[in-house]
Parts: sequence; structure tokens; C-alpha cells
Amino acid sequence: MNKNLIIRNVRPLGGDLSDILIREGRIVSISSGIQTEEDVAVEDGDGAIALPGLIEAHTHLDKSLLGMGWRPHQAGPSLKDKIDTERRLKKEWDIDPVRQSARQVVQSLGYGSTIIRSHVDVDPDIGLEGFQGVAETRREYREAIDIQIVVFPQSGLMSCPGTLELMDEALENGADVIGGLDPCGIDRDPKGQLDAIFHLAEKHGKPIDIHLHEPDELGAFSMEMIVERTRAHGMQGKVVISHAFCLGMADRMRAHGLVERLADENIAIVTVATPSRPVPAAAELREAGVTLCAGSDGIRDTWAPYGNGDMLERAMLLGLRNNFRNDSEIEYALWACTHGGAKMMGIPDYGLAEGCTGDVVLVEAETVAQAVVDRPSRLLVVKRGLIVARNGAALIETP
Amino acid sequence: MNKNLIIRNVRPLGGDLSDILIREGRIVSISSGIQTEEDVAVEDGDGAIALPGLIEAHTHLDKSLLGMGWRPHQAGPSLKDKIDTERRLKKEWDIDPVRQSARQVVQSLGYGSTIIRSHVDVDPDIGLEGFQGVAETRREYREAIDIQIVVFPQSGLMSCPGTLELMDEALENGADVIGGLDPCGIDRDPKGQLDAIFHLAEKHGKPIDIHLHEPDELGAFSMEMIVERTRAHGMQGKVVISHAFCLGMADRMRAHGLVERLADENIAIVTVATPSRPVPAAAELREAGVTLCAGSDGIRDTWAPYGNGDMLERAMLLGLRNNFRNDSEIEYALWACTHGGAKMMGIPDYGLAEGCTGDVVLVEAETVAQAVVDRPSRLLVVKRGLIVARNGAALIETP
Repeated sequence: MNKNLIIRNVRPLGGDLSDILIREGRIVSISSGIQTEEDVAVEDGDGAIALPGLIEAHTHLDKSLLGMGWRPHQAGPSLKDKIDTERRLKKEWDIDPVRQSARQVVQSLGYGSTIIRSHVDVDPDIGLEGFQGVAETRREYREAIDIQIVVFPQSGLMSCPGTLELMDEALENGADVIGGLDPCGIDRDPKGQLDAIFHLAEKHGKPIDIHLHEPDELGAFSMEMIVERTRAHGMQGKVVISHAFCLGMADRMRAHGLVERLADENIAIVTVATPSRPVPAAAELREAGVTLCAGSDGIRDTWAPYGNGDMLERAMLLGLRNNFRNDSEIEYALWACTHGGAKMMGIPDYGLAEGCTGDVVLVEAETVAQAVVDRPSRLLVVKRGLIVARNGAALIETP
Repeated sequence: MNKNLIIRNVRPLGGDLSDILIREGRIVSISSGIQTEEDVAVEDGDGAIALPGLIEAHTHLDKSLLGMGWRPHQAGPSLKDKIDTERRLKKEWDIDPVRQSARQVVQSLGYGSTIIRSHVDVDPDIGLEGFQGVAETRREYREAIDIQIVVFPQSGLMSCPGTLELMDEALENGADVIGGLDPCGIDRDPKGQLDAIFHLAEKHGKPIDIHLHEPDELGAFSMEMIVERTRAHGMQGKVVISHAFCLGMADRMRAHGLVERLADENIAIVTVATPSRPVPAAAELREAGVTLCAGSDGIRDTWAPYGNGDMLERAMLLGLRNNFRNDSEIEYALWACTHGGAKMMGIPDYGLAEGCTGDVVLVEAETVAQAVVDRPSRLLVVKRGLIVARNGAALIETP
């Protein structure tokens, strides 16, 4: 597999026509008229826009139903209904985490994602099966994609004894991030869950990524408890809140106060830009200096039947949700699906610049904003100089 | 052009495998093993789902910028900014209503729309140029698509003297529907505008379709004035409110009272399912018996750069906006983009049944819900038995 590659005639982020030379998986030059060398493969971009590899900052690789046929949604409206239905169907259906995570990875590659952060369920019922399955997929596809694994107490941490020990074990065995979930709404013990998570983070020297669906003042309360612990543990820049619906609350002054506290502790926000729920206001986060990134959340799973892993489509949905119309706003929506994700995940050397990792996606569009609006097929997807997808399809077969 | 067609091996709305026989543009039989006859063309659907032709119930054919290159959005945040910017750019750019409406029609055909309702701007500046342009496109493409034209006082009716007379003239010359626009917010004279519109409706015997962006209690006030006039003029079933953001107001009891009044007067609602604004709750309208239909609104225009005319994607956005997850809910989202539109527009003989007009769209999916979620390429689009698009592309060239 050749990791020396020249991609000729592309417009990095819509800029001037250039060639991109990748050697040993790293961008060594972006300029026009780079000389062809013998050990370097050549691709012609034919004027396409080059983007850095897209970043899927929040998904659930272990439980997609992709390729398993259409399964009508069964869960009731509450979060608890969805958790219970999923636990039941995990037993009734054969949702194999190895096969399913691989299927989603292959689909995401076709859409140009080169880095994924996946939450993976851990509870006493399934033990570490999900974690081990996704870890296997991570090994199997390590040349094509980088995967960060968050050990995620989907069924609750305090309310599900044994989960903490399993998370601890997963962290000993290659999990990257400590997950959390609605410390009030699901666990009914915010102090208990958050203390446990931050203790685990200290023990393993790992970052934290907490699902916070709690709306309004309840979510604000949990958020404050997270902020307090981030400060107390000196974990600035290492704590992430996913969803953060409470930041969409009607009381904008209260929400803004929370945003300022997030900025103070360098806590990032991950959003899905859910159209049916209040969501954090992207422009407000940007203004305050809070890192925003985006993810698909579950794709075609027992939680909801939507989703395809296309992070250009996610940028469009983020734009629509935030009423972004100007090019600079739409470019920011894409920033959240690229650089924002890299910043949140602590990925070094990310981007389209000399010295950066050679993760590149080509799309045919006049401007970056048009690429977001039109979501054209990914002509070429390159991971560390290796071509992993072409014309919308991964070069690796679906399991 | 052959209008006798058998489409073999399709699953109407995801049901059992059948053949559909269309003669003289009308479905005469849906059953299995229909005999081939000499004067009937044959297509094999290969197990695809057959849907009735999709219905674009709200767009602006006269002002799309499709095919004109990427034009960064210029307008400020208010509705007035957008109206003024558009008036300026209509002069600066060559937004030819004939060419632009034809381009959008061709694109919509590729996505399987066989009926479109388009609002068309009328004001003393542009006169009837937009109307005549879209009317020309309607004539040109009359075999491939049905287009209803709403004469639309985009710049205001009371605040823009001369507009009413132009609307009157357009209605004499083939316009189908009388438009209106924010009688308080834009026109600052709700009684004046609404009396004028209802008077015009009475004079021409035509239905009404009013853009109502006004939020909260202001929109509720305008909506009540529309309801009162619908009742007084006996125009039940002939009045439509587009957007109706006020129905998304926080005061759900107040909103529900309005919904009941709409149901009483058989006033339909057209939605775009805008993710960034409060919108009417689809389930509440359905429960109350208010007809709901959907549209793309402007596609790639000076108002916003989004949109592609794909009514399966619109159904998905409607589903996401309303938190629809069950198959039956997602099917209802598609109902709004098919039967809901036909009901609102008063289209007779619409649907996939014997005796209905032969408008059929084929998509590869297991279920109707999956077709909405995946938005697969339209394999075949048929208008009154005539094949107008194949594999996602209209068989008519873009101007």
C-alpha cells in the first residue's frame, strides 16, 4: 500500500489550484507544479475541492443495524424506553458489534470520514463484548481510519452496579475516553456518577465525554457540576459534553452564563444539531470560544432509524438548525465537522497544511459552502496517503 | 410519446409485488401478471417500491439561482432585508424566470416530483414578467409536470400600490391561486390585505395561499383574521396557510385552539419543517384533521442557499423536525409530500389506485420508511404514463 501520493489539481478548501504531496502518510508540500517522483502515486483531482478528512465526533459503532434489513422502530418516547428496548433487542437480534461497527466504518469511509469517536456501551449484561468488538474493528481498519473509543455507561453507572469496574477494565485495555450519561435524569445520583467518572479519569489519565440530554434547569445543574469538577481536577481541555440540550433553553441569559463557564474551563460541545430539540446555539459557542464539533449519533439503530454517517450532510443540518446562510457561517458548520472534531479529540497535526497528516477528501464543488449544501459524492478519500474510498464507495468491502 | 405503459414487478407503497398498467395516462389496473399488449410499453421495476408522483407544494420557481454558479448569500437577517436584497439582485443579476423555472422543474423531475405549486412574485417593479416566465415553463413542460401558479405579492400588497391590479391581471391570464404575505409584519395593514385577497378570490373564484411567517401572538392574530374571512366567504377547503410558524408557539393550548379553528374551516397548512424556527406540530395537525403538506420553499435563491427539490428529503426533514421514529409516523411524513399536497391543491384522481392519474415514482427500498430515510435515487419517474426521468435524471435537458 503506497503512502506516497501526489494529488494534482485540487483547490484546498476552495482556494487556488495546487498539488498536494503526501510522503509517508504526511503532507510535505502544497503548491503548484510539484515534480512527479518515481515512488509516488499520482491522482488528478481535476479542479475538485480538497478538504481535510471529515471527523465523525459522536456515534455509536457498536449498535448500528446497517445491513440488517429495515427494522421498524419499536421504542417508546422516553430515554428510558429507548435504553430498555435496546437492551431487549440486543438479545433478540444478532447485533454483533464486530460486524456492525465494521459496516458503519465502511459506510463512513465512503462519505469521507477519516477519524471517528465512538461511544461503546458497557454494562453488566453485555460486559465488554461491545468494547472488544469495536476494538477489533479498530485494529482491522487501522490503516483506513482512526477510531477513539469512549466506554459508555448507557444503562447508568450508579444505577447499574458492576459497570464502573467494567469501564475500568476497558480503560486498562485500550479504551481512550471515559463516558457518562445524564447524571440526574438516568442515574438519579449526579454526585455519585460524576465523582466516579472524574476519579476514573484521574486514575487512567484519560479524557471525559458525557452525554447530557437533560433539558433546561436540570441540565444546567448537571452542567455546573461538570464544570466544577473540571476546574477542581485541573482537567481543562479534557472534558467534553455531548448534546447539551440545556444550552438551548429559553432563558438565553442563563444559557449564556453556562457557555461562559464552559469557555473558562475549555470544555468542548458535541452536537448532532437535532431538529426536534433545543440545541446549543453554534454562533454563541463560536463567539465565546467554546470548541464545537458534530456527530451523527446512532446510525440506523434501535434509538432512531435515521442517519447515514455523511458529515457533509451533518454540516448542512447544523447550518439549517442554526439558520446559517452566509458562506462564512456555512464554512463554520463544516469547521465543526473537521477542525472542531480534531480539536475536541486532541488530534495532533490535523488539517490541510504542510506537516499535517495526509487525510484528504475531494469533492466537486465551486466553494466549500456549496459542498455542504450539495453534499456531492466523495471523489477520493485519502487516509495518511492511502486511498481508502473512491466515487462515494470505500475500497474495503462491507462485512 | 407512448402513454400506455406497464410497470412490472413493483411494490405499490411497499405492498405486494404487482404490475401497474397505465392507459392513456391513467392507471387502469394494479394486479399481478397483467398481459402484455402490443401498444403498451413495458418497464421492469425489479421489485422496487412504487410511490405516487411526489408533490412539491410550496416553492418559488421564478427565482432559483440553479445553474448560475455559487452566489454567496448577501441578505441580512430580517424578512425585509431578504425582500429588499432580492429586489436589488433581480436587477443586478440575470435571474431570468423562464430559464430558472425550467432549470428547477428539470431538477425536480429527476427527484420524482410530478406536481408543483409555485408562488411567483408580482410587484410594480417586475410586473408580470415572473408570472409570464413561469407560465411559459408550465406550457413548455406540460406533458412532464403539472404546475399551479400562485400570484404572490412578495413586496407587499397594501404597501406596494399597483400590485393588486397586477395580481388581478395575472388571474385573468391563467394564474391559479391568490397569494398573500404577512398581513401585519410586512403589509402593516392586515384588514386591508386580507379583505383585498378575499375579494379577489371571490371575483375570480380562485383559492388562496398565504405566507404567514409572523410568530407567536402576532401570527395567531393574523391567522384568526384569515379564519374569520374563510368562514364569512364560505371558502372552506379553499384557503391554505404556508409556514404558519405561530402554530409552533410555546403556549400549546393557544396553538391548539388555533389548530381546531383551522380544522373547522378546512384550512390546510403547508410546511417546510424549518429546523431553525418553531413550526406547526405535524402530529397535532393530523390528529385534528388539518391537511398537512410540504414544500422545499426557495431552492438556492437569494433568500437562502439550501434546497434541492427532493421531496423524499423533505419528508425526512419533516420526520426529523417532528421527532418521528415509527414507520407509521415516517409514512405520514411522506403522505404530506404526496397525498397531503394533492388534497391541499385540489388535484382529482391522485394516488396509486385504479382510475388515478398515472404519476408513478420507483425507488429501491425495503419499506416506504426506508425510502424516506435513505432517499435513494429515483429509478423511474412517470407522468401520465410518460417516462420523464430515469436513474435520478430528467429525460429533458436543463436549459
